[in-house]
Parts: sequence; C-alpha cells; structure tokens
Amino acid sequence: METLTVALGSREYPILVGQGILENGGLLLPFLRSPKIAIVTNTTVAPLYLERFSTPLRNAGIDIAEIILPDGEQHKNWQTLNTIFDVLLERRCERSSTLIGLGGGVIGDMAGFAAACYQRGMPFIQVPTTLLSQVDSSVGGKTAINHPLGKNMIGAFYQPKLVLADTDCLNTLPDRELLAGLAEVIKYGLIRDLPFLVWLEANLERLLEREPRALEYAICRSCANKAEVVVADEHERGERALLNLGHTFGHAIETGMGYGKWLHGEAVAAGTMMAAELSRQLGWIDLDDLKRIENLFERAGLPVFGPAMGADRYLELMQHDKKVQDGKLRLVLLKQIGQAVVSDMASPTEIGKAITSRSTDV
Amino acid sequence: METLTVALGSREYPILVGQGILENGGLLLPFLRSPKIAIVTNTTVAPLYLERFSTPLRNAGIDIAEIILPDGEQHKNWQTLNTIFDVLLERRCERSSTLIGLGGGVIGDMAGFAAACYQRGMPFIQVPTTLLSQVDSSVGGKTAINHPLGKNMIGAFYQPKLVLADTDCLNTLPDRELLAGLAEVIKYGLIRDLPFLVWLEANLERLLEREPRALEYAICRSCANKAEVVVADEHERGERALLNLGHTFGHAIETGMGYGKWLHGEAVAAGTMMAAELSRQLGWIDLDDLKRIENLFERAGLPVFGPAMGADRYLELMQHDKKVQDGKLRLVLLKQIGQAVVSDMASPTEIGKAITSRSTDV
Repeated sequence: METLTVALGSREYPILVGQGILENGGLLLPFLRSPKIAIVTNTTVAPLYLERFSTPLRNAGIDIAEIILPDGEQHKNWQTLNTIFDVLLERRCERSSTLIGLGGGVIGDMAGFAAACYQRGMPFIQVPTTLLSQVDSSVGGKTAINHPLGKNMIGAFYQPKLVLADTDCLNTLPDRELLAGLAEVIKYGLIRDLPFLVWLEANLERLLEREPRALEYAICRSCANKAEVVVADEHERGERALLNLGHTFGHAIETGMGYGKWLHGEAVAAGTMMAAELSRQLGWIDLDDLKRIENLFERAGLPVFGPAMGADRYLELMQHDKKVQDGKLRLVLLKQIGQAVVSDMASPTEIGKAITSRSTDV
Repeated sequence: METLTVALGSREYPILVGQGILENGGLLLPFLRSPKIAIVTNTTVAPLYLERFSTPLRNAGIDIAEIILPDGEQHKNWQTLNTIFDVLLERRCERSSTLIGLGGGVIGDMAGFAAACYQRGMPFIQVPTTLLSQVDSSVGGKTAINHPLGKNMIGAFYQPKLVLADTDCLNTLPDRELLAGLAEVIKYGLIRDLPFLVWLEANLERLLEREPRALEYAICRSCANKAEVVVADEHERGERALLNLGHTFGHAIETGMGYGKWLHGEAVAAGTMMAAELSRQLGWIDLDDLKRIENLFERAGLPVFGPAMGADRYLELMQHDKKVQDGKLRLVLLKQIGQAVVSDMASPTEIGKAITSRSTDV
C-alpha cells in the first residue's frame, strides 16, 4: 500500500492506494468523528463491493445508512441528490456523521456535494472504484451535479478527510471505462510530467492487462501530480485550470451528444486532440508531437476525433464553460509535450478550424 | 453612514449601514469583479426597490440579469433555487459575475447558497431590506434552503464581498416583520451584551417608531456583536452556536406549524422564553430575570409562549437540529442575562417541562 498526502493545511488528507484495502475497515476507523456513517453508492457497485466494504465497519460497531442510487451520469442531478438528503434526514445523520462515496466519479461528485451541503458541511470520505475516479475526480475536492444547460455547473470545492483507492476494484471495471480512465492518466504526462508520459508509452500494455503493480504506480503518480497542482491552487484561480486539458472541448462533446453517450475520458481524449491541433496551429507543437499523442491515445483504444456537431455548435457549448472570463474562451493548450498553459490567444475562427479538423462522422 | 468590518482574513468584508445608501450605486462598484451582475429579489421587494437599486448601476454600464422569485419562506427550496440557476446559465453569468441578494432573510439565504454553488462559487453581495436580515442573516455567511424534514438543512458557509443595509428600507416593512427582527436584536443583548440590553430597554419605543438614528445604532451594534462571534468561530464549532439562543425551540415551532405560519423572529422570541425557563429550572437565572426578558419581548409585541404542540412533538422536531451531537440535544441557555452558554445538561424530561410551561393554545 502506498500513502500520499494532499498538503492543504488544516484540510490536509491522505490518499491510500493498494490492493485489497477496500476490505480493511481498520484503515478507515481513525477518520470517523462519530460511529454513524452513510454510504452512497449505486446499483452497479453495490452488489460488487458494498457488503465487502461495510461488513468490517458494521462489525466494528458502526451504524451504517446505505443509499443506493441509480447508475449513470444522467442521474447526476438535483433529483438524485435530494434522495441522498432524504435518507440522511430520515436516518437522522448529524453534522458529525461521515458520508462515504463508494463508486466512480458520478458517485464521488454527488456524495461530495451532498456532504458539502448537508447541514452546511459534514465529513466526507472517497472510496473510488473506477480508474477515472481513482486518478482524478476523487482528488482535489471538486464536487458537482449537472444542469440541463451545462455539466458540473452546480457544486462546491469540498475536501474529503480520506481517499481510499483499491486496485482490485478495477478487475470488475468494463474495458471501455478502464480506457476512459487512461485518458486522464495520459493527461498528467502531457500537461506536466514528461517522464511519466515516457513511462506510459513503455508500459501501456501492462495497464491494459490490469497488472496490479503497474496500476498502483500509475494511480499514485497521477494522484501525486494532481495533489501538487491542487495544493498550489485549490480554487482554480490559476495553475489548476491546466488539469482541464481537453475538457472544454470534451464537455461540449458530452453536453452536445447528451450526457452518458460519450464517457468523460473518451470526450477528454478527443478534446485533447483538438487542443493539441490548436497548439500545432499556433506553432507551439509540431506534427510529430501531434502524432505522438494520437498514437498513445489510439494504443489505449481511445477516440482521437470528436463527433461532427459543427464548429459553431461546439463553440456555443464551450461558451458555457466555467473558465470563460469576460466572454473570452480560455483554453488549456500545449506549449510543448509535458507543459500545458492557459491561453485566450486563439480566435473563435482558429478554434473552429481545430475542431473541424479533429471531428468526424462516426 | 457607518462602516463595520467582518475580519475574516482573506474573506474579510465590510458592512455599510446608513440612510438612503441603496440608491448609491457608487458604493457597490468597487466590489464588482466584472461588469455583469445578477440581482435576486422577490415579488414584494422588486416593485419597491429594484429599479431604485439597479438604475444607477445600469447607468454605470453594468449588465444586469434580474431574477424575481415568489415571496415567502415556503419557496425556500430546491425548486426555487433552480430557477436562479436557470437564469444564471441562460444569461451566461460567469464565475466572475456577481450575484446580489436584494431582500429579506429568505432571499439572502437562497441567493447566497446559489452563489456558493454556481460554478462552485461566484462573488456575492447582500443588500438586506428587512430588520431581521440586516441584523442577523446577512452577516456571517450562513446560507441555506429548507428540506421538508427540516429548516436550513441544505446549505453552505459562504461569505459575501459586501453587505449594504439601508435603514430607509425599513419604512415599508410591515409592523409584524419589524417586531420579528427586534427578537434577534434583543438576542444580542441577552447572549453577550448587557449594556446593549439596557439601551434597548430604554430605547425600544424609538425603534418601534422607526427613528432612523436609533435603527442605525441598533443595526450596527447587532452586526458588531455578530461579526465578533463569527470571526471567532466561522464554522460554528463553538461560540457561534450561542447566536442560536431560542432557535432550536424556535425551529421546532416553525417546522411543526408549517413554514411561514410563525415568523422566524416570533418563533425565536417564544423559543427564547423556553430556553430562559429551562435556565431558571437549572437555577442559573431567577424569576425576576425571566420576567425582565418576558417584559421586553412583550413591549416589542412578540409572543412569549409557543404553540401547544405537546412536548413530545417539540422534542422530536428538535432532534433534527444541526446542533445535535451523538444524539444529545445541545441547547443555548442563559448562565445569566447577558451571558449564554451551550449545554447538554438538561434531560428530555426537564426540556419538556420548560416547553410545557411556556406553550399555550393560541
């Protein structure tokens, strides 16, 4: 088991990564402020891991409320969030009770936002069960739900007390979701960690084969990268925006195609190719760099073109992005491979050109 | 005009109190991060103050989205909150746009919570137009909406950038609401400021007659008391709970009778009498003290008995209070007049006895 620390002062917390740690309730007990917890999970994860996770806690005398949500991004909304509040109130959970999110990114986002809002804030623990949530969404305190007019538009910055990532959970993950998670892993290499990108190019097959030691290394290195960025800029006023490479384009894909059609990581991969193409147009990276990125995504089975929605539709959807400032689109682009920057230099015409050249009819 | 500062470090902000300052857009401009704002108000306040408030801002080139909600505590819920998000997104408000709450406590609570959640946080300004919101809810960063199972159960601690309290707004306030606001003013005297209580006993009639200088003094002194408490304990881990004298009983009244039947201040006055009676039973204050408090509330036209819902119903509703810890009711009681404490010493039987002796059929 590896332990990382997210050094956020009074809100500092550890990330534990390892094989089989989900079943070790003892790891979690010191982080509870009272013997009452609520576990938020979904209909897919519950039959796989809920009992395994909760039994040792129940045996330790913890009073557990279980909240099993329907699975899927399309449920990341007010209505579902309210079902969490309903149970918390019915079961009389208190401000000192702990809310635990057991599942992927959607569960983590919703459980975290519920914890942020319930009685104006209750302790929260993340137990991510997908690669995407283990390397990205469970670290850094971003929580949110979707709004019909935009993804993650309603949320909070709210840090967990503990993150517990078990590599064994990835054994039950569908291939498509494993690959989508790799998009975010590759992202860390692209934006700030060239040696890690080189490692990924050499070890991608080990990850695709779900080799536990390779997974543990990739998860740890991803979380370490993310933790460094988050500590430097918790509320996304500057550097943290770099984590969104490909995300502004990607959110347009997710929203435009309807939540859930494209997996987040898939949209990020295609969006990253658009950002890379725009970076190439600006003369920052060259065609070889572009091919190098494309090649790695393709080896990981990820899409390297977005859907052909038309550049105008993309641009309209991108205007809703949270990084828009004074109406100007601020995009994360690549100065070179391993170094991202935030830039509002590109005109809508240039952005549209990059979108068109990296989108295609499926 | 008087200026107070809430000294919360990087989240420090000023409270401006004075006559006619609502119409002075110049006071507000330096606090805007972009020339785009959204004003959240309601159907009662809008015809009275919206144009007066927004015209000077519009003349200064500010782009204003107006969001007019239905009036009343019964609308302090998810559905109404969502109408705020709908407009913010339709009008493409950004993370740097400012949300302004123009109205009473319900508007401040909802606008503040919307600002806390929109894109994980946008700047917020409070323009309270009722006495209750000027002396209490606009200061300290508590925001929330109600849940069918409990008042203010879903919310956030979120500080405004500025509070602007115009005493002229109180001229259009119904008598009943002015009196309800006085309950919170009197509270500051009871919990921590005996000299202010003495001033109130001597000057209550000036406040009832809405004399501007007396109002300005009472508002400033109330806000100063609240600001001191909030600075010492922003997230209500200790001292801040003292501000809730009468509130645990009061919330039970509000919830039990149905939101909106009793005004918040009315419920707090009756609840404070229950807390005072319990303090008397514990031997901390005597009957003269109790009569002194009762006398001041009665002169202010406030109820000094709660509705006869039965002690068991009260206790059940009080169990949902956010101050419950490990199932134990922690109540704010009076060690003496001018000094409140948080205590879990009283048994349910003792609490029930105090409730019964201070509740009556209306």
